[in-house]
Amino acid sequence: MAVITAAVATDVAQVPVAAAQGGVPPGSVGYVSPTYISFDDPLTLVSGQVLPSYELAVETYGELNEARNNAVLVCHALNASHHVAGMSRENPKDVGWWDNMVGPGKALDTDRFFVIGVNNIGSCFGSTGPASIRPDTGQPWGSSFPVLTIEDWVHAQVRLADHFGIERFAAVMGGSLGGMQALSWAITYPARVGHCIVIASTPRLSAQNIGFNEVARRSIISDPDFHGGDYLAHNTVPRRGLALARMLGHITYLSDDVMAAKFGRTQRAPAEDGDFHYGYDVEFEVESYLRYQGEKFSDYFDANTYLLITRALDYFDPARQAGGDLARALAQVQADFLLVSFSTDWRFPPERSHEIVQALLKNNRPVTYAEIDAPHGHDAFLLEDPRYHAVVQGYYDRIAYKLGLSERRRTHGVLA
Amino acid sequence: MAVITAAVATDVAQVPVAAAQGGVPPGSVGYVSPTYISFDDPLTLVSGQVLPSYELAVETYGELNEARNNAVLVCHALNASHHVAGMSRENPKDVGWWDNMVGPGKALDTDRFFVIGVNNIGSCFGSTGPASIRPDTGQPWGSSFPVLTIEDWVHAQVRLADHFGIERFAAVMGGSLGGMQALSWAITYPARVGHCIVIASTPRLSAQNIGFNEVARRSIISDPDFHGGDYLAHNTVPRRGLALARMLGHITYLSDDVMAAKFGRTQRAPAEDGDFHYGYDVEFEVESYLRYQGEKFSDYFDANTYLLITRALDYFDPARQAGGDLARALAQVQADFLLVSFSTDWRFPPERSHEIVQALLKNNRPVTYAEIDAPHGHDAFLLEDPRYHAVVQGYYDRIAYKLGLSERRRTHGVLA
Repeated sequence: MAVITAAVATDVAQVPVAAAQGGVPPGSVGYVSPTYISFDDPLTLVSGQVLPSYELAVETYGELNEARNNAVLVCHALNASHHVAGMSRENPKDVGWWDNMVGPGKALDTDRFFVIGVNNIGSCFGSTGPASIRPDTGQPWGSSFPVLTIEDWVHAQVRLADHFGIERFAAVMGGSLGGMQALSWAITYPARVGHCIVIASTPRLSAQNIGFNEVARRSIISDPDFHGGDYLAHNTVPRRGLALARMLGHITYLSDDVMAAKFGRTQRAPAEDGDFHYGYDVEFEVESYLRYQGEKFSDYFDANTYLLITRALDYFDPARQAGGDLARALAQVQADFLLVSFSTDWRFPPERSHEIVQALLKNNRPVTYAEIDAPHGHDAFLLEDPRYHAVVQGYYDRIAYKLGLSERRRTHGVLA
Repeated sequence: MAVITAAVATDVAQVPVAAAQGGVPPGSVGYVSPTYISFDDPLTLVSGQVLPSYELAVETYGELNEARNNAVLVCHALNASHHVAGMSRENPKDVGWWDNMVGPGKALDTDRFFVIGVNNIGSCFGSTGPASIRPDTGQPWGSSFPVLTIEDWVHAQVRLADHFGIERFAAVMGGSLGGMQALSWAITYPARVGHCIVIASTPRLSAQNIGFNEVARRSIISDPDFHGGDYLAHNTVPRRGLALARMLGHITYLSDDVMAAKFGRTQRAPAEDGDFHYGYDVEFEVESYLRYQGEKFSDYFDANTYLLITRALDYFDPARQAGGDLARALAQVQADFLLVSFSTDWRFPPERSHEIVQALLKNNRPVTYAEIDAPHGHDAFLLEDPRYHAVVQGYYDRIAYKLGLSERRRTHGVLA
């Protein structure tokens, strides 16, 4: 258990100390730090290329029990990471991207489950990716980093399970792109996934989805600072392209209604007489918001990672190997499923989840499906919604009951 | 009438000649050429700036009758022009953008109506715009061309009506941005618009609409070849930015369903074993299509015009001057209205047309409203749909009857 203990970011003893400092809100896993785990066996990718070795950035919360049957793998979406919950020890303002979901007493209760957050290969938050140094050249991988698929991520993650001695996850869980990884886990390693939780996701991208991805990629690739992907070797970054990609992405994550409610046609700083400025600088709040999001993103995200992740999204299509028949692609699956979709998600609308539900039902798999009538569009999967979180919590209660895990503590957590 | 005759692009005598050459399909207005009309009185714009003079590129079809009461003004959308119908005399493959709507025997019947197509100021197809030579400098206007509003276009067009001696249009008509101009006409010059035909339009852009416009504008402005709008002085064009803007626009013009039907996940040229190529070149048909559209657009469209037109779209909001009350903004309107929307248009969805219909009904204006269940998204307004065209044709029949215009000829035209 030594390795595992090293990776546990916050033990019970630490929480009261942090709380005594006034820094840890109830239900938080507290201060966390990543662990970096190296895998030296070459990984053969779906493309046929080989990644000679890789490192994964990992955070864990809670404790792996003796039976090693209480582990939950949380897979991240486009611009997230292993930092799922808690506050980063180096920067406490950096709260995990699914902190409202994961913690003691929360929907995914770290008092009962051992939760693993992992940054995927190809990403730019600590795991091996295009901005990492290539061992054989001593230079950044840049454009030579191989194109990855969601299956490649799953194959990389299964070694992480082996590392922790986890034969079978209580659950693999994710939203959006993370949900695709969960689905891919259930297909690729059926015996190793007890429950599969797929939120705001899809069994494949539509032409429209691919179209938006392509515009984002062209924004980056056509930025003169991209240098064919080797911008780091040129001491630059394609900031303009990254900012455009992010602005566009943001529009697709939000519903038309929530954008109307959030920004409407409000002007940022009207002329003195209340009129427009009649120019191309920021005029409306929504422009200001998008520009800010774009600028911020281009400060921290790697352009090659953006290309790589959007391409992995495009390629995902588990039914492809089964002649387009998703039910047949899911025939070997052994997991029980929870699917959640959101009514105003026009990126991956409820119909896409219905397809998965139908394909599972054709295989007589147990499926729980919830369609949440939420105004927030695709982003809803990241937001706190009592009905949504109650569905997930109820599902984890059932998993805990089936696995004979301890009773949920009722004394803390937002939902307790 | 001399000026008008000069502007009539195709007279009846020409059609049989062209048809004998095998070049003119039935229902076409035949070969057409633009007329350029100069206006030397300064035009004071909504922004307060003054355009010292301007030229409008115009095409007309059919004949203005003695009573001068059979004129219809057709207003164009973002990338269209005065070339509404027929085949360009210089390039017969260049067919007018609404040729399926306008011609002898068609929904807008040029045997009965005198139809004017006009290119707006600020555009790049012959009327005065940012790429035109600025009289006082002898250089292209470039970044110094004033920002325009839809009301400015209407004010420029009213002088065109005066030029033709048209006191009152039988109808002002347009789709999308063209519909906004028609609506603005009815508000700004109530006595001069008999009927107002507003198709696939909206009384104002949503935050999402503005957001997409902003991404398109940032694509252009952040292209290093933009040079602050003075790219012509640098002998270049921001092709990358224009292409991105167009790619993005195209996605928003199509419905998710029609993109699925048109492209699905079809691969452009699969690897020999049918697999993917695992790279960032074109992989899917939809990518190929969007790139082609983007490239083509950047060959002919002016970047400053793109900024200007999207900004005019953003600013359009006739209810603004009436405290946000669209009904109050429409209180002085005298026209009868036809509104048409399309079920899958997610750019300007039917709800936006409902707002206009409701506001008109509050003012007891006669309104005909048709919601066409069409799969094509926003683009539907440009496409041939028998139900849609029948609605428009029926409405024009009513106008002709009210005005005592001649019987419709039933011997030619696609709908005859």
